[in-house]
Amino acid sequence: MKIVVAPDSFKESLTAMEAATQIEAGILAAMPTAKVVKLPAADGGEGTTQTLVDATGGRFIEITACDPLGRPNQAKFALLGDGKTAVVEMAEASGLHLVAPEQRNPLNTCSFGTGELIKAALDCGIDTLLLGLGGSATNDGGAGMVKALGAKLLDADGNHISSGGAALAALSSIDLSGIDKRLQQIDIQVACDVDNPLCGATGASAIFGPQKGATEAMVQQLDSALAHFGRCIEQQLNIDVINNAGAGAAGGMGAGAIAFLKATLRPGVDLVLDAIALDSYLADADLVITGEGRLDAQSVHGKTPIGVAKRAKQFNLPVIAIAGSLKEDAKVLSEHGLDAMFACVPAPMSFELVKLGAAENLKQTATNVIRVWSLAQKLEFN
Amino acid sequence: MKIVVAPDSFKESLTAMEAATQIEAGILAAMPTAKVVKLPAADGGEGTTQTLVDATGGRFIEITACDPLGRPNQAKFALLGDGKTAVVEMAEASGLHLVAPEQRNPLNTCSFGTGELIKAALDCGIDTLLLGLGGSATNDGGAGMVKALGAKLLDADGNHISSGGAALAALSSIDLSGIDKRLQQIDIQVACDVDNPLCGATGASAIFGPQKGATEAMVQQLDSALAHFGRCIEQQLNIDVINNAGAGAAGGMGAGAIAFLKATLRPGVDLVLDAIALDSYLADADLVITGEGRLDAQSVHGKTPIGVAKRAKQFNLPVIAIAGSLKEDAKVLSEHGLDAMFACVPAPMSFELVKLGAAENLKQTATNVIRVWSLAQKLEFN
Repeated sequence: MKIVVAPDSFKESLTAMEAATQIEAGILAAMPTAKVVKLPAADGGEGTTQTLVDATGGRFIEITACDPLGRPNQAKFALLGDGKTAVVEMAEASGLHLVAPEQRNPLNTCSFGTGELIKAALDCGIDTLLLGLGGSATNDGGAGMVKALGAKLLDADGNHISSGGAALAALSSIDLSGIDKRLQQIDIQVACDVDNPLCGATGASAIFGPQKGATEAMVQQLDSALAHFGRCIEQQLNIDVINNAGAGAAGGMGAGAIAFLKATLRPGVDLVLDAIALDSYLADADLVITGEGRLDAQSVHGKTPIGVAKRAKQFNLPVIAIAGSLKEDAKVLSEHGLDAMFACVPAPMSFELVKLGAAENLKQTATNVIRVWSLAQKLEFN
Repeated sequence: MKIVVAPDSFKESLTAMEAATQIEAGILAAMPTAKVVKLPAADGGEGTTQTLVDATGGRFIEITACDPLGRPNQAKFALLGDGKTAVVEMAEASGLHLVAPEQRNPLNTCSFGTGELIKAALDCGIDTLLLGLGGSATNDGGAGMVKALGAKLLDADGNHISSGGAALAALSSIDLSGIDKRLQQIDIQVACDVDNPLCGATGASAIFGPQKGATEAMVQQLDSALAHFGRCIEQQLNIDVINNAGAGAAGGMGAGAIAFLKATLRPGVDLVLDAIALDSYLADADLVITGEGRLDAQSVHGKTPIGVAKRAKQFNLPVIAIAGSLKEDAKVLSEHGLDAMFACVPAPMSFELVKLGAAENLKQTATNVIRVWSLAQKLEFN
């Protein structure tokens, strides 16, 4: 019997690799002959790069790159085990956590450092770039990023526009002649789980601006600037980013990635599941076990267990999920591919105690699930 | 598929019948065609009589009977659904909870009321009497009980000895000529989970006397009195109760039941499982689901899930247990017939919250267990 084990991390207690290792141990305790494929997974959110490094035997590479305020800072990207795929997370160089609360001002913050990370990744000779957008401090449409990669964004006088979201209003011409040519030779995929447009009431500035420090007046100013930026892209590059779902992700980085990197925006979980080649292991599998720290009705929106289940169902495979916490509304997930769900909480206890015992409890739950499986199969044999 | 559902109660949250009903609902949600046999079970401890009444469609009958200090009190016994089996619990008329702490003195407390309950049960025309011994306030060797049933326990002057454990020292002759003759026509079984002898260091007085209010000096006095009582029984009735395991249960009621009622002492869980006719449902079953509020390594000592599992294993049936709380050492129970064990706690939470959601969570856990079962079986069919 071949079992694919593809859990996300259990927040605050187990990485995805640790979770997969415990589930594997639990399975083998109940069924020593099982063939277990351990595939730590993620959904593009926190911990995704670490999981991909763990899953593929990759490594991190650290460089100096500008933070959102242009200050040099240490930042890292991942080179996966194939040596050909890099993972860059925007939060590494352009993250909100890098800017003190009183300095947060998306009129000024800039995504230049993310471009530097991409450049360093290109230097590794990659053929695939995965870009994560979560946690950014910027609202500059990826202008800083593309400047770091050699593009020229000029004002009416032919000067470089300034850094930051406000300066986009001064953009007059886009000159991509100097952009790093290697970008055209690789596949670039952006993990994007929102479908916000670039501008307007549900655009980047209105929805994500305030949490980055924008006042109501700044939101207006940023939205106008992004709209102008979008029109310039449409007129000069003939690419419609204004009406593109997801263009508003990460302060318009979605639009910048489409326009300048020719990137594809995809749900984070799909991008990750492709990166770990999940499908290639499902073809001859008998059962899939997934899991996450918490499962609830919201998990249908791009969470790993549901993403794993969708893939498994294309192969008509049964899927069992084990969670640290099963909210009451998680029941609906049975309609989204999770055939059975178990919490691995052994008794009434606090979250602190659950975390302490998480590894053992996850293993025990997996053991007992597989025992039920074995009992049912034996009965058939009788 | 036929599934026998035989859980104990979930303490402080679900009666055994409520637990069985939830498990049944959970099974049917996952497998609507399943044939479920609902058999609430118990182990002779708290809640046993209620469970037997629920399981068989029986009823309670209330009478006035003496409490341990001879005061008239309301007390009830159960007549099970067959109309031929009565269940009497010693705690009902002779329980420690009936005596205020400052009045607890096993030199004086008396089991007369338990005899009155037995007499009332005989009046119902029963053919089987089940007697539970837990929680007694007395150390009188069942002398009060048998007096209520017509026996004469006389001193050297031919007078009735007084009530209580101390007075046994004055016993000279046992006259059973007046004992209720109906006792000889019925099967009497005593639920007894201890193997303490009547006297000595592990006897009734030494082990259970202190919790009933006996000082060290009283324990000595009570032990001597019970030893004398045992010798009288041996000499006059030719029954050896002194060396009988369990004779020391409930202040020597074990000895009294053997000597005067010709009762059989049996583990409580076995007596209950016979009363609900568990074995008759196992013969053509495919799976057994049991459970209890809490499972731990101590559960091997006479707890319901292990008792159920032993019976199931005689029929080579798989057994799955669902608990409100699975202690870490519960793992050993897999060597005692519980093939798989699940806690029905859905998330880190307090005992208070677990109790509130117990019914729904038990149902959900049963559903998910049966889903795994079904998945495994379907795979075989493919």
